[in-house]
Amino acid sequence: MSMNRIITIGREFGSGGRELGRRLSERLGFAYYDQEIISEIARRTELSEQYVQSIVEHQPVISFPIHIGTSFYPAPTPVFDQSMSVYQEQARIIEEMAQKSDCIIVGRCGDYILKEYEPFRMFVYADMDSKMERCRKKAPEGEKMTDRELKQHIQGIDKKRAKYYEFYTGHKWGDKLNFDLCINTSRTVIKELAPAVARLFEKDEKSAFTVQHK
Amino acid sequence: MSMNRIITIGREFGSGGRELGRRLSERLGFAYYDQEIISEIARRTELSEQYVQSIVEHQPVISFPIHIGTSFYPAPTPVFDQSMSVYQEQARIIEEMAQKSDCIIVGRCGDYILKEYEPFRMFVYADMDSKMERCRKKAPEGEKMTDRELKQHIQGIDKKRAKYYEFYTGHKWGDKLNFDLCINTSRTVIKELAPAVARLFEKDEKSAFTVQHK
Repeated sequence: MSMNRIITIGREFGSGGRELGRRLSERLGFAYYDQEIISEIARRTELSEQYVQSIVEHQPVISFPIHIGTSFYPAPTPVFDQSMSVYQEQARIIEEMAQKSDCIIVGRCGDYILKEYEPFRMFVYADMDSKMERCRKKAPEGEKMTDRELKQHIQGIDKKRAKYYEFYTGHKWGDKLNFDLCINTSRTVIKELAPAVARLFEKDEKSAFTVQHK
Repeated sequence: MSMNRIITIGREFGSGGRELGRRLSERLGFAYYDQEIISEIARRTELSEQYVQSIVEHQPVISFPIHIGTSFYPAPTPVFDQSMSVYQEQARIIEEMAQKSDCIIVGRCGDYILKEYEPFRMFVYADMDSKMERCRKKAPEGEKMTDRELKQHIQGIDKKRAKYYEFYTGHKWGDKLNFDLCINTSRTVIKELAPAVARLFEKDEKSAFTVQHK
């Protein structure tokens, strides 16, 4: 088992979780994996990145839980089969990354896939108003969604994430018991939050939140 | 409105939330209120501390929400009436404390009572095994509860807390959206956790979690 320190970050869309992950990785000197995972899956499966992306954002069409038992059920359709291959490839890649160095993994069921590595599991969330505000700031110039559209867009993405997570892990997405720390970013600026959160992992002080070693 | 910095801590029984509050107050130099609130209510209402304690641990017998609208409903029974007086007295005392100095308030719907002061709201929780272990360590010599009894005891207390909180605030107890930070203490030692959490509030670094000022 690896000695690397691993932080996984689950996050609501628009909560700034991805930015927090990136900034934490810079401060802590951990590797940060995000789009790299998709590219690597695409390379290994010879599917297009776009197609892989669309798969990892949805649960397979056939909806029965696969997390029970040790082996996968026989796949009843080619589409289902492909989703499963992509998920399995993703799990393999994430484990390889965890074995390579200290790292931060955002989303992608990382907390579940790496549970035997006992990662430090964060969940980042915020109230709807602040998520909408954050999305507005990042929106491409000229994108004009009404408040109602934007809210539905945010809810839609999180609904997909929840379904995907629950399908592959059997756990409720965002349930605080599955995390070591849940951070509400509604009143914070990520840039200012990151150094404070990074200090939780400083090595010189007696370990507060131990990013587990095995 | 006060300029004081206020931290409220909601906590599951056995999670170490009270100890974290006390240690944080020592490190930050904030006042810490806990049993003092009960003593003060008792003094003002001329009820016994024990009786006040029993009231603040239960919702009133008559169960309809009181958080709607600005004034309290007419009290239909003397017992209900007394519960309401104690709650109102408690709210008054907590506000006085918040106005007096920087402070940490554990439990007692502090986050709700002080919402206009925009406190930093923490919730401390843990998995059942670690709560049981923490309770065993703190149990008086000679207390012999079976695992099953202890688990029921813990669940019973949190059920009361949840009912009390929901009755007075109209919010779901422990819902992460009502907090700025939720900490799972299952894998931590409170004594080592406290300094790290305290660093989140250090003034010299740019405010990370701003304990709000008004």
